[in-house]
Amino acid sequence: MATVNDNFLKLQAGYLFPEIAKRRRAFQQSHPDVKIISMGIGDVTQPLAPAVIWAMHKAVDDMARKETFHGYDDDGIGYRFLRDTISKNDFQERGIAVEPDEIFVSDGAKSDTANIQELFGLGNIVAVPDPVYPVYVDSNVMAGRTGPSTGQGIYRKIVYMPALAGNNFVPDPPAKKADIIYLCFPNNPTGAVATKAQLERWIHYARENRAVILFDAAYEAYISDPDIPHSIYEIDGAKEVAIEFRSFSKTAGFTGVRCAFTVVPKELRAESRAGQSVALNPLWNRRLCTKFNGVSYITQAGAAATYSSEGKAQIRDTIAIYMNNAKVIRETLASLGYQIYGGMNAPYIWLKTPPGYGSWEFFDLLLTEANVVTTPGVGFGPSGQGYVRLTAFGDPDNVKEALDRISRIS
Amino acid sequence: MATVNDNFLKLQAGYLFPEIAKRRRAFQQSHPDVKIISMGIGDVTQPLAPAVIWAMHKAVDDMARKETFHGYDDDGIGYRFLRDTISKNDFQERGIAVEPDEIFVSDGAKSDTANIQELFGLGNIVAVPDPVYPVYVDSNVMAGRTGPSTGQGIYRKIVYMPALAGNNFVPDPPAKKADIIYLCFPNNPTGAVATKAQLERWIHYARENRAVILFDAAYEAYISDPDIPHSIYEIDGAKEVAIEFRSFSKTAGFTGVRCAFTVVPKELRAESRAGQSVALNPLWNRRLCTKFNGVSYITQAGAAATYSSEGKAQIRDTIAIYMNNAKVIRETLASLGYQIYGGMNAPYIWLKTPPGYGSWEFFDLLLTEANVVTTPGVGFGPSGQGYVRLTAFGDPDNVKEALDRISRIS
Repeated sequence: MATVNDNFLKLQAGYLFPEIAKRRRAFQQSHPDVKIISMGIGDVTQPLAPAVIWAMHKAVDDMARKETFHGYDDDGIGYRFLRDTISKNDFQERGIAVEPDEIFVSDGAKSDTANIQELFGLGNIVAVPDPVYPVYVDSNVMAGRTGPSTGQGIYRKIVYMPALAGNNFVPDPPAKKADIIYLCFPNNPTGAVATKAQLERWIHYARENRAVILFDAAYEAYISDPDIPHSIYEIDGAKEVAIEFRSFSKTAGFTGVRCAFTVVPKELRAESRAGQSVALNPLWNRRLCTKFNGVSYITQAGAAATYSSEGKAQIRDTIAIYMNNAKVIRETLASLGYQIYGGMNAPYIWLKTPPGYGSWEFFDLLLTEANVVTTPGVGFGPSGQGYVRLTAFGDPDNVKEALDRISRIS
Repeated sequence: MATVNDNFLKLQAGYLFPEIAKRRRAFQQSHPDVKIISMGIGDVTQPLAPAVIWAMHKAVDDMARKETFHGYDDDGIGYRFLRDTISKNDFQERGIAVEPDEIFVSDGAKSDTANIQELFGLGNIVAVPDPVYPVYVDSNVMAGRTGPSTGQGIYRKIVYMPALAGNNFVPDPPAKKADIIYLCFPNNPTGAVATKAQLERWIHYARENRAVILFDAAYEAYISDPDIPHSIYEIDGAKEVAIEFRSFSKTAGFTGVRCAFTVVPKELRAESRAGQSVALNPLWNRRLCTKFNGVSYITQAGAAATYSSEGKAQIRDTIAIYMNNAKVIRETLASLGYQIYGGMNAPYIWLKTPPGYGSWEFFDLLLTEANVVTTPGVGFGPSGQGYVRLTAFGDPDNVKEALDRISRIS
């Protein structure tokens, strides 16, 4: 008799974004004439850069001729032309030694941050900030690395590290021992960034405890402050203890194109049950070769074009649109008396809900009264209660209209 | 201290295809002037259908304009336009009731057949044909559903079902109890197909034993005999006990484009540890929502175009090229005195190696003497020893030259 993975049954009701989509649909159905504006799910709105469009048309044409047709990506970890380009532009040119064979191209940072836990034993203690991107937690729940839920968005055995206004939403290493630590800077959902000194404390902790840091840098392109690190590998000693996740989704508007990459340094090791030291780079390589078959040639050609000089300039322009949205959102909401965090060096704004409103209550208020969709902070963990997340990825006209509507009800 | 997933360390040396690539590279390096012809890895060689190219160009253009830009695929399980088209063309029109919400679009059948085991508890007994596509086995090894390897390509706890000339490479249900059973017809690697009566025996077994059949139909487009089922759901009662995998890779040459889909019927259930009956359709949906973010809009637009009337005709023409290759391979090698199986209703030819040659020895002979790459049958399991797999996916001119070279050394 086939039995299910009981760990799946520990998962709490609906993944956050489908739940938001459901409430939105229900409201739209009962108010068909209302134009709802989304500042909720972190999806982009600006079209792809012309350089990317051009490269993808060319790649489509390559697929139309036998001589230039591309089948399987040989190793399933990304065409060499893309991994070379990433290594050079994202790392070497910033003085960071990340080689092409430490870079693994994938269909998304969501897939990678969800799948990376497969490399680790079930006995590892996982630490996450609270609030946090739900994928880190849920993928560990599904694998059986946690106990049951306590009903508050909390699972037993996971170490939660509150990120609150009091610590500027950047938690310190925990007093408790943790083996696998998820960090995300610029942060989703709070929009917080970590300084070099803060990241150094984390690398120190990981080295002391022989822990592994899973560093999600999906939003690094939004950093404008020259003192904020873009990569965890800007910190000395990080290559021995950290994996880094990057994405083209927010950098280049690839949410509907699907491309990302993960850096697993050759120096990074963890221990087997028998006490052997095992390198994680070949383990991740094996994982991908066995369970994945690479990313579309057309997509990878588009991703490579984001590093051309035209591509870089065009992407900077798009990011400037979003970061101007962030500025307008911050300033407008602050002028209305809301307490606002984030939105600088990060595309997310973290809004403290008014007294008397929990996250979902304020979400519902904004949906029904201002017809604006946000993301309830509590969906990211209990310390997100009393916040909602706004994204800067909207179209500027829509952002302006959304703010006008919020102004009218505030 | 972080510890690794010890199950990964049970995996035997290199995944088959990287090992083949390594030997090929080594030979090419020492013989730089030799033109090696691949009949090994099942990668296609013909360009994409013009209808697909056209649809992908249009989709790229959609991504260039704000009004037609596509971000996240809402539910991460495939755009509705594609799932509707699949439901209608692949199932409803053949009289099979598979609804769009039973169809989950993904980046490849490799990913899906590797990931599907996550839905099941670690205590399930897994049965696989021998020889078999290595992904089914390796993904279960990595999850911890097997014991250690015995060093013969065999892992303890897995039930192997020999597929040999004596049973026409279609094993009967095992005498031993199995909970999760992988089947693949038309078969990779043997090229065998299963009749309706044979599949009925499997569905009967699964219903009797409350087992789940994971049916890989990635090669169904190569079936020309009207009596051979294309889908497991052509068998009465299959929807309660079977998941089906389909792919655009071989059907439409999408090996470098990446698109597939999996059918998880709403009727299909398995049991929790507490004895509840749990539907697998929402479980797979949750798995995808949590750990995956959908397939490129451009790719999905291309996949949908394979169902247009032009697309269908163009794809049929390409398949005819490959199946003509299969015919030429079968006939030529048979005339040389080789014992040949498969290659009818399937793009794979299963060749019995001459006396005195194991799979790898014959692989090396063909590589070094005829400069033709094949796939050693033993790489698919111990019952594949003494066979090599040839694929029909080559360019016709190359296939002819490869056969000429093999003729000269035979």
